[in-house]
Amino acid sequence: MCTSRPIGFVGSPYHDTANIPKGLGAKHAAEGVLKILPELEPGLTDIEGFSHLIVLWEFDRSQGFELIGTPPCDNRPHGVFATRSPRRPNPIGLTIVELLRREGPSLHVRGLDMLDGTSILDIKPYLTGIPTEVIRRGWLAEAEAGKQ
Amino acid sequence: MCTSRPIGFVGSPYHDTANIPKGLGAKHAAEGVLKILPELEPGLTDIEGFSHLIVLWEFDRSQGFELIGTPPCDNRPHGVFATRSPRRPNPIGLTIVELLRREGPSLHVRGLDMLDGTSILDIKPYLTGIPTEVIRRGWLAEAEAGKQ
Repeated sequence: MCTSRPIGFVGSPYHDTANIPKGLGAKHAAEGVLKILPELEPGLTDIEGFSHLIVLWEFDRSQGFELIGTPPCDNRPHGVFATRSPRRPNPIGLTIVELLRREGPSLHVRGLDMLDGTSILDIKPYLTGIPTEVIRRGWLAEAEAGKQ
Repeated sequence: MCTSRPIGFVGSPYHDTANIPKGLGAKHAAEGVLKILPELEPGLTDIEGFSHLIVLWEFDRSQGFELIGTPPCDNRPHGVFATRSPRRPNPIGLTIVELLRREGPSLHVRGLDMLDGTSILDIKPYLTGIPTEVIRRGWLAEAEAGKQ
């Protein structure tokens, strides 16, 4: 068992999951703040040098999980580990955000898709991307192709 | 508090952290197996279509954390959230691996940097990369430039 406690909380414009863009072509351009606990602020030293951050957070308003589910962007069911569904065995979410600026323990970022008040579990620098041309995106690419 | 249980375990050639490539220019080309619990196998449905996976795992042999530390690839200290240090407030690791093939509940992958037996917390499809030209990598880029 691995027990995590929040390192901070998300300040987001989203107060209801219905307002978060989902599905094919959803753009996550919302700006907000990652409010890190003041006692952990030294852990942010030098983070300003990174343009993008990986945020791990808790799907704290999601209950239970399902191994097979139909995502909002397709009409076919897929395994939970082949989707970003919130209803996962361990309800950990992952979002890559653009760091706009830091003010003490607060990181102003763009690209949020979490609800206001969401617990943050970890922040890591985003270091390298897989070149776009080698990424295969399985059912998601098929769903996108079908919608065109 | 967020409590996670393993969804499976890593079969890795690394049995000692000393053998895992670290620091500047470290290449993670090790092959191994993500052994998912048989009862969760339905959650892998359609995962074969993705070339790369995000693996969240537990630094289960790491004790405690430090907010400021000096990583193996630099001689200057940095905040823990600006590094990939295992000594984090929540000991969650993240690795992007290439999916080679699936055999039932076992995912054969390339690019491991975890120890053999490491607990896996989640697997997500890798969907999009940030274009390399817009990624800024702060102290790490400086450390690399200094070594040339």
